[in-house]
Amino acid sequence: MTEQQAHAPKPLRVAIVGLGTVGGGVIRLLETNAALLARRSGRPIEVVAISARDRAKDRGIDLSSYEWVDDMTRLVTRSDVDAVVELIGGSDGPALTLARQCLAAGKPFVTANKAMIAHHGLSLAAAAERAGVALKYEAAVAGGIPVIKGLREGAAANEISRVYGILNGTCNYILTTMEKAKDAGQPRDFADVLKDAQALGYAEADPSFDIDGVDAAHKLSILASLSFGTQLAFDHVDITGIRHVIAADIAEAAALGYRIRLVGMAENGPDGLFQRVHPMLVPLNHPLAHVDGSLNAVVAEGNFVGRLFFQGAGAGDGPTASAVVADLIDVARDEYGDAFAMPVASLIAAPKADTGARTGRSYLRFRVADRPGVLAEIAAATRDAGVSIESMIQRGTATADDSPDQRGVLVAIVTHAGAERCIADTLARLAGSDSLLDQPMVMHILD
Amino acid sequence: MTEQQAHAPKPLRVAIVGLGTVGGGVIRLLETNAALLARRSGRPIEVVAISARDRAKDRGIDLSSYEWVDDMTRLVTRSDVDAVVELIGGSDGPALTLARQCLAAGKPFVTANKAMIAHHGLSLAAAAERAGVALKYEAAVAGGIPVIKGLREGAAANEISRVYGILNGTCNYILTTMEKAKDAGQPRDFADVLKDAQALGYAEADPSFDIDGVDAAHKLSILASLSFGTQLAFDHVDITGIRHVIAADIAEAAALGYRIRLVGMAENGPDGLFQRVHPMLVPLNHPLAHVDGSLNAVVAEGNFVGRLFFQGAGAGDGPTASAVVADLIDVARDEYGDAFAMPVASLIAAPKADTGARTGRSYLRFRVADRPGVLAEIAAATRDAGVSIESMIQRGTATADDSPDQRGVLVAIVTHAGAERCIADTLARLAGSDSLLDQPMVMHILD
Repeated sequence: MTEQQAHAPKPLRVAIVGLGTVGGGVIRLLETNAALLARRSGRPIEVVAISARDRAKDRGIDLSSYEWVDDMTRLVTRSDVDAVVELIGGSDGPALTLARQCLAAGKPFVTANKAMIAHHGLSLAAAAERAGVALKYEAAVAGGIPVIKGLREGAAANEISRVYGILNGTCNYILTTMEKAKDAGQPRDFADVLKDAQALGYAEADPSFDIDGVDAAHKLSILASLSFGTQLAFDHVDITGIRHVIAADIAEAAALGYRIRLVGMAENGPDGLFQRVHPMLVPLNHPLAHVDGSLNAVVAEGNFVGRLFFQGAGAGDGPTASAVVADLIDVARDEYGDAFAMPVASLIAAPKADTGARTGRSYLRFRVADRPGVLAEIAAATRDAGVSIESMIQRGTATADDSPDQRGVLVAIVTHAGAERCIADTLARLAGSDSLLDQPMVMHILD
Repeated sequence: MTEQQAHAPKPLRVAIVGLGTVGGGVIRLLETNAALLARRSGRPIEVVAISARDRAKDRGIDLSSYEWVDDMTRLVTRSDVDAVVELIGGSDGPALTLARQCLAAGKPFVTANKAMIAHHGLSLAAAAERAGVALKYEAAVAGGIPVIKGLREGAAANEISRVYGILNGTCNYILTTMEKAKDAGQPRDFADVLKDAQALGYAEADPSFDIDGVDAAHKLSILASLSFGTQLAFDHVDITGIRHVIAADIAEAAALGYRIRLVGMAENGPDGLFQRVHPMLVPLNHPLAHVDGSLNAVVAEGNFVGRLFFQGAGAGDGPTASAVVADLIDVARDEYGDAFAMPVASLIAAPKADTGARTGRSYLRFRVADRPGVLAEIAAATRDAGVSIESMIQRGTATADDSPDQRGVLVAIVTHAGAERCIADTLARLAGSDSLLDQPMVMHILD
């Protein structure tokens, strides 16, 4: 053994489980940037074993130099594995089993699995605490943006009042594509753009997790816990996706000086924890209005730092791999601690805040029958519900070859600031009215 | 001793040296957020002693509960001080003496001192390494934005090709105020806006460190070292401030679809390390174009993560205190490592890149005498220097009551992409010409 070898630092030996797009990206990154990673981590990061469901699958990447292990659960007890990276996905099932076994075996665990963290993050963090090892999940929220670290550490000196952002690249791609189509004078509806997004690989064949806001809600619940020191409460997130945003909404919003974004928003107030994912009208002077395409962005507002804004790629193999390997570097450097910024026992079980008591301005859009009295019916409902109207626009949209999405007359209302329960009351008063051709659309306005 | 006391975690006991705006902010933060900090750090952070030059000075904050120490250097050897926070400022003198003594005594050292880190960061990091303690300086760059952490850890998996940003809030305030004045149809020149900024407290009485780009250059050299794994090289930063940006530049840039920002830009290439601070034309579709007022922003481009963008308050007591205390939390959590992301011995001494070999588009503006032949003279110089012109605009500005800044005729040129040495050659050819009423202005265009 040469002197140099005698002093060579011990590598961090990792096993990678799950070899889809992200798993392939992690392996490619560890290979491409190996020398740099060794300098930055103080020691090499080596892949000693890999595992996935199907060994035969062609992944377009040469894995022949890595030891393949069929039974992933055997990795957690191997003495030559220092840390396990889980990239299988799914809130339960094999990923969760692996996580529990790995932490119980006293091995650091790194994951990109937002669903699992949102549902089981606290019990996993408790297991990591008991074992005194790292549970890391930077890649679970906003892809390559180091926002877990930004909140857990960078903004840690602050009481965070509000954390919010654009947390789903698929939705943002669809909304901004609809926006560009409008700007080009060729408005396109949601379903049409979604189809293209699927063809281009920006949306899954089954896109519901993304477009119905569930994916963003997973991420939001994680951000909320980290920001406020509260227990994860995914079940308390109010979720509305973007399925019902129509081209006319994009146009009305633009005319009013706003852009529509699917915003995940969490606030910590005296009445509890508010968490909501829904399409919002974002004013042009807000940085979220300029987040285009499949980018993600997160805003945190702290009592000393003010407003922090983080933006970057929210998905894709490269950015996600960047976040996964950042976690590995923390493990290799031995710079880590409580997964949710404090011991699990210190996290507060906050009640769900009363959404109805929130105040703000809102956008309401109705598609109604083109006949006398309909406008008066809506106006009366808002009046009786105590909603104060800032502006109300009625536009006929009927043409001969109307698609079902374009029938009837559109009524778009912007309210003055008021309690959200009055908006809900308005909708309740109009429920069942045969003047309404479909469900009204409500989007709150970001202040 | 009760059971609870027996198990109470040991506080992190800190001494704060320097009690200006930032020092006051740190004390206010540690008081206001004390309970939260104890939860997040796993233990309380307590101020055990304070020191500054002048005890008698009214700081508008009650310091009577803290032990005042006249001789700050005695703090480093006190057994009841776990970490020292330096907020005196200045690259050398008492701050540097304190830093050296503190690290030599084996105590963690936290500072907001960009000048000291830019000039002496490597020797201080080496001292911290020898002692095995933390040297932390999050507040030294971009105020409250956790960009040191973002680069050292968040983006650590990437080879960073380029890091750049808006690193001086005073300059950004002045430039965006000039921009708004133009938009309002009442263009204002630099000197005029600076005077207002000084009255409002956005600029120092002696503003030269800010407006001449030195402050931004300090920060840029730190970002470059962290991003590229290179040794600090402040002396290799090319620096041009914003003193010579005139209202007409703002207007011409806007007409061309750009905004002017003082950009600190560093690139790591095969020919060495490029570092420059100078006013640039930023296209409207780039996030830096939307960074307004005294905000700061940093962009890092990595080979896996793509473009990361961080924005927030770059100065002020609250944001700076947020960064200082984030460092203390890292120390309290025992989550820290090499100050420049790797051991000092691993940092590469990169040569200074040849600026002339860089290629890109540029904006050149001349103020010239209003007489025949001047335009031809400039055109000939660009031709002989091999500069290819994309557009050239001449505007007469003469009015009866011209200020010296507004005399003559303006010639604004935008070049095609070409080598920067050709731009320098153009200026050399025109040097001494009595057609030029003052120094030409060169701003490169951000691609």
